[in-house]
Parts: sequence; C-alpha cells; structure tokens
Amino acid sequence: MKAELIAVGTEMLLGQITNTNGAFLARQLSDLGIDSLNQQVVGDNQARLDAAIALAESRADLIFVLGGLGPTPDDLSKQTLAAHLGRALTEDAPAMAKLQAYAAQQHHPMTANNRLQAMYPAGAKVLPNAVGLAVGALLTVGSKTYVLLPGPPREFEPMVLDALVPALLAQLGRGQVMVSRVLRFFGIGESQLVDELKDLIEAQTNPTLATYIKPYEVTLRLTAKAATPAEANALLDPLEANVQQRLGAYFYGYGDDNSLAKAVVAALASRRLQVTAAESLTAGSFQAALAAVPGVSEWFKGGFVTYANATKASFLGLDLGKVNAAGAVSEYTASQMAQGARAKAGADVAISFTGVAGPGPNEGVAAGTVWIGLATREGVSASLYHFPGNRQAVRGRAVKAGLFALLRLLQGRSAHTTFNA
Amino acid sequence: MKAELIAVGTEMLLGQITNTNGAFLARQLSDLGIDSLNQQVVGDNQARLDAAIALAESRADLIFVLGGLGPTPDDLSKQTLAAHLGRALTEDAPAMAKLQAYAAQQHHPMTANNRLQAMYPAGAKVLPNAVGLAVGALLTVGSKTYVLLPGPPREFEPMVLDALVPALLAQLGRGQVMVSRVLRFFGIGESQLVDELKDLIEAQTNPTLATYIKPYEVTLRLTAKAATPAEANALLDPLEANVQQRLGAYFYGYGDDNSLAKAVVAALASRRLQVTAAESLTAGSFQAALAAVPGVSEWFKGGFVTYANATKASFLGLDLGKVNAAGAVSEYTASQMAQGARAKAGADVAISFTGVAGPGPNEGVAAGTVWIGLATREGVSASLYHFPGNRQAVRGRAVKAGLFALLRLLQGRSAHTTFNA
Repeated sequence: MKAELIAVGTEMLLGQITNTNGAFLARQLSDLGIDSLNQQVVGDNQARLDAAIALAESRADLIFVLGGLGPTPDDLSKQTLAAHLGRALTEDAPAMAKLQAYAAQQHHPMTANNRLQAMYPAGAKVLPNAVGLAVGALLTVGSKTYVLLPGPPREFEPMVLDALVPALLAQLGRGQVMVSRVLRFFGIGESQLVDELKDLIEAQTNPTLATYIKPYEVTLRLTAKAATPAEANALLDPLEANVQQRLGAYFYGYGDDNSLAKAVVAALASRRLQVTAAESLTAGSFQAALAAVPGVSEWFKGGFVTYANATKASFLGLDLGKVNAAGAVSEYTASQMAQGARAKAGADVAISFTGVAGPGPNEGVAAGTVWIGLATREGVSASLYHFPGNRQAVRGRAVKAGLFALLRLLQGRSAHTTFNA
Repeated sequence: MKAELIAVGTEMLLGQITNTNGAFLARQLSDLGIDSLNQQVVGDNQARLDAAIALAESRADLIFVLGGLGPTPDDLSKQTLAAHLGRALTEDAPAMAKLQAYAAQQHHPMTANNRLQAMYPAGAKVLPNAVGLAVGALLTVGSKTYVLLPGPPREFEPMVLDALVPALLAQLGRGQVMVSRVLRFFGIGESQLVDELKDLIEAQTNPTLATYIKPYEVTLRLTAKAATPAEANALLDPLEANVQQRLGAYFYGYGDDNSLAKAVVAALASRRLQVTAAESLTAGSFQAALAAVPGVSEWFKGGFVTYANATKASFLGLDLGKVNAAGAVSEYTASQMAQGARAKAGADVAISFTGVAGPGPNEGVAAGTVWIGLATREGVSASLYHFPGNRQAVRGRAVKAGLFALLRLLQGRSAHTTFNA
C-alpha cells in the first residue's frame, strides 16, 4: 500500500509556515509500515488541488489532504474532494451541535462557511476533531482511500493519533508490528559509517538500517517487522551485535531522545562523581550543555570561563608566566587548566578546553586546533584535536568531543586520541 | 515567472525530518516577487526524482532541487539532474581543493562519492558552499532554470542568501532594485508587534512589511522596489521612522546577520569596557553567546558558572550563610553575584543570572522566575523576570534578556523592568 500526502495552504508556498504536519503524518505512516513515495504542497486553489488529487491517484492508494477544512473562503479541501469524487457533502450531527454551541457562546451568526466545518463527503467515516471544530473524514472509493485532515497542528496531531491511526489499522487488518532501535555514534562521519556498514546496508530487507545526521553526530535506526515485538527484537539483536562489533568504539547510547550530555550525567550519577570545567575556546558551552540535563545539579556545582591567559592564571591559580610561555593552546595549558579547575572547585573530575575557534589562526596556531584536558585524583592528560568548520562548528564539535572523552573516562574506557567527525 | 520546489530525501517521507528548507526558500522567492504554485517531496530515488523534475518542467520555469548533494550513495540529485538534461558533471577547482584539504586534515581517503560534492552539471554557475563541502549550481537551459541546493539547513540557508539570491536577481535583470531593511526587536511578541503596526501592515503596497519570529526575538523586514537604491531608501525612511516611533523601546539593531550578542560586543568596544558574568541558571550560555562573536576577546576575559550556592560563595567571595538565607533566586543573591564577579574578574561591568529553569519549582520558587543583576563602578541593580516555556526556553530567554539589559545599560538607556516576550 502506497500513500501520498497533499498539504494545502498558500502560506506554505509563501514560506510563512513550515509543513510540520507532513512530517508528523509521514512518521505515523512509516511506523504502520505504509510507504509514502511522494508528497505535494499546493495553495488554496480548487483547480490545482484537484490536479494534485488526480496525480496522487495515479501513483498511490491512500491519499491524504492536509489542511483547508476551516471556515474561511480559502478553505476548499472538502468541497474539492467531494466534487472530484462526485459526492455530496452531508452533515455530521455531533459536529454541527458543537458548532452551534460555539456560535451561541461567541454570539456569532452561523454562516454557510461555518457550517461546512461540520460536513463530510457522503459515505465517508467521520474523524472527530477533539480540539477544534472542523471534522476530518476517511472515504474509500474502489481501490483508493481518501483522508481529509485539518491544518492547525494542535488539531491535526490528536486527530491523527486518536482517530486516523486506529481507523487505518482497522482498514489494514494486519497482524504485524514494527520495532525500531536507534543507536547513537560520535567521532565518525556519516559517510565513513555508511562505508563500514556497506554490505549490511546493501543487503537490507528486514530488518532495515538507516543513518541520520545530527549536529556533529550520526544515528543509526534499525527497524524490524514481525508478528510480535519479541520476534522483531530477535531479528534486531544479531544485526545490532554485528554493528557494535564494527563501530562499538564510536557508540555511546540508544534512543532518539538521548544525547552525549545525558549519557555523561547518567555516568556521573552512577559513579557518584562531581565534575567541573575550565573553558577557554568553548566559553561556557560545555557547562551549558551539561546543565541542559535536568537533575545535573547534584553532579555539577560550577566552573570557570577562562577566555584570556590572565583569567586562566587568576581564576585557576596557574602561573601566568608559564602559561604565556607554553601558549594558550598547548598541552601544558590544557592540563594545568583541568588540574586548577578541579582543585578550585573541589570536584572529582575536571575537563578543560583551549583552542582556536577562528576565523583565522591565533598566536600562529591554526583555526580548529583544540586541546582538551581531563584531570582526576589519579592524574591529568590532554588530547589534541583538529576540527573542521567555522567558529561555531569548531566550538560545537569541541563540546561533543569533550563530552565523549569524559564519558569514556567515566566508563573506564580509554579516550580516543584521534577524531574523525 | 513561476517556481517549483522539489525537496529530496527519504527522511522527509519517513517523517524523520521536516522540510524547513522549503519554507525558507519559498519566503525568499516571495520576497523577490517569484510565485511558487507547487512543491514536491520525493525520496532518494533517481527514477522518482527524474519524474518530479519532468513534472516541474511542465508547470514552472524555475526548478529547485533541495538536498541530495552529499557524499553518501543516497545522494543522487546532481547525477539525476545532469542525466535528465544530458549534461556531464564537471569539477569545481576551488571546491575540490577544499575537499582535498579536508580529507588530508581528517586523514580520510577521498572516495568517488566524496569527489561528487565538488562537481556540477557542465555549463552551470557554481553556488559556493561557505559552510560545508557540497557546491550548489544554477543552470539555464532554454526557457528553464534549474537550481541545485544542499540539504543541511546550516549549509542551505547561507547558500540561498549569499549565492542564490544575488544570482537570481542578476538573472531576472529587471529594471528595478529591491532594498530591504531588517529591524530587530526584543521584548515584544510577534502578535503584539503586528497589533501595533496593524494599520501599516493592512495598507502595505510598496514598501511592504513582513514579520519573522526568531528564537525569542522578532524581526521586521521593510522592502521597497524602485528604479534606484536611493529611491527605494527614500520610500523606506518615513516608514521606518513611523515604526521606530511606535516600537523604538524594543528595537536593538539592523540586519539578518545581527544579534543581541553582536550589538553588546559593539557597544562594549565603542565604550572600551570589559564585561564578566556569574551564571547560575544559564550555566555558561550567556558567556558562550558573547564569545560566539569574533573579536570579543578584548572585551571579555572570562567569568564564572556558579550553579550551586557553595560555588557562588567560593568563586565570587560571597557570604554563604547570607546567600542561603536570602535564597539562590533572590534580588540579594543576583546583586551579590554581579558585584562579586566584577571584583574577582577586575571587569568594568558584570552581569549575573539566577533563576529556576524547571521543570517544576525549586526551593518554592516557580519555574521561569529569574533575577538578572548588573554591576558597574557606580553600583548594582537586579531585575525580576518571569519567562514562559520549558527549561531550554527559560534559559534562552534569560540570556537574551540579559544581553538586552546590558545593551541598554551600555547605551545609557534605562533597562526595561517589564518583559513581554
């Protein structure tokens, strides 16, 4: 079964709103195992919407029209689909009662356009609108199924989840489930990851593998279809083991809602360790990333932004002459910063960042050159990185590389000394 | 002239990413007076992309293909368009040099897929990629113009603004110029701004007014068409004066490429003042925002992240007993933090942030409650804010409110004591 989504609205063609409904519905359809190969966007224009519906009929079985169900003269989707199929519009009594109650409450007269919100093409199943006034509809004619859905996301999303998905599941009448597993990687680029998994990606049928680029990270989604969740997981387990064997050095966690900062905070909590930081290059970004995780306050009490050599010395108790002699961007300075921060904050572990964000070199050191230091009770080490990209990218990559190095340290696994993302 | 946008990417069909590029480009085209009547989304599939291009040719003159220029085997846009038009792919020397330098820096081998990023259909104008590696292209064949653009928004948006729009303006070769003036506002929501300018927005013809929501800010773009830039500016001047008279209290600067942080750094430089910060709630975000501005190092040497009361006391020299008694989120603590940071860093001006990011209240103080302190040689003051939104939004709004308050202080204009955004 193939689906096609038609989003209706001149605002989308003008760039005034983004088609978030399309993404939301596509994700639900994908979870149901329904392929959608094409999407269209058209304006509030009956002729062009009619042409879009005809085009969708030529290549899909399940045709969704998103938006255009409201009370304004621009809202034409319901009328256009009904005319396209030669159906009359008929009234949904509960929706009409709701409309009338609303009009009475607002002391509005009820216009013909208003009444349209409670109507649907004859023969359709009504999809109730729990949030707004315009009903949706699902109508099967021969081998094609047509669905009308409202435009405002706060009406659209509940209607999709609560009315449409159950109706589609009933229509499909399948006995299959889909299970996905998201693996997160740092330190490897998407193209290198694809290269490492090339044979698996080329041979995929069930389970499937798909890569996604996140800011300075890559995620891999493994998806299996089977009769039960247990059977789907039994398909996923050996595939994941194979992936982990190849890429485990870069793996740091599971899930769409995960992050390096969350993994670090979880590792700090499990080892009951407190962290601090001294940031030059990253100027507070590392600490801000850490503090974005709720509940961090038990494991992070504070730290330092030491942007100049003078503040490295005065805030962290370093010897300014030696820092100046070694250079701000040096193994010596990174190590001293981490040790100084750890002592000043009374923390268990400290991380430091010093480097050149660019644009252009600084003190003869190329943009993208970064030292990251890590100090514990046992000692201190610093690693050298070379990050590509502009000022923002260098700082963003440095923060993630620092989180990853700290995570590996907390996990008792040695930190990477090379960096490939 | 009619345009059609084709966004390419299976992730969009699966709902894993939203087509924000489509909206961004549509807005730029709308500003240029170019109508776009249809948009399409297709997956990473050569046959379907080819069909989408053919369909677009049947109804548009200007055909945009968004995405699919990267180095993975899924990236097929360039090859597909070249094959569709019967053109060879040829190499852009500057882009290839950049690719090679990147591969050498990363110690990566250069694959054939990688090289594709530096290629373009023969005869096209190359659109350079300032942020990433894949070049775009603009190619006119007969009455049709084809444009290839990269998928990642951080590459897409600068390429559209800096390379595509000027190329389209040259191509359109009208006897008219368009001059835009972007005004930036903080502390007022979009709906309130629209309300204040309602009569101007309803009456607009030339110049036009359009509002855009940025993270916790609103911008207003005034655009005039005329025979010369001077004539266009003569149309814009009285309109801007009218807007400034109504909304000057919220105005802080001009331009798409501006920010509150840039305005603050410019004000620090013009007054030759050094700033420091003590951040609790914002945990380094303020300092990171400031340090995102190149050249800030002369005016910002470092500061503190004091997430716990104990570090507020130890890093800033405060009396822990008094801080505990007053509470972390209090006028007393915010004022003390700013004064302590200023003294410890030896800066001219210091800002402090303490508040409750949420989720949920802390020490009986509601989420969204924030005190921002400002200390100078003349004294100290602290202002109370109540920000809506989740943890990230509260911190983001606090950083911008702090930048705005600091800017007004540096400009010798009193800081707002109320907050409406």
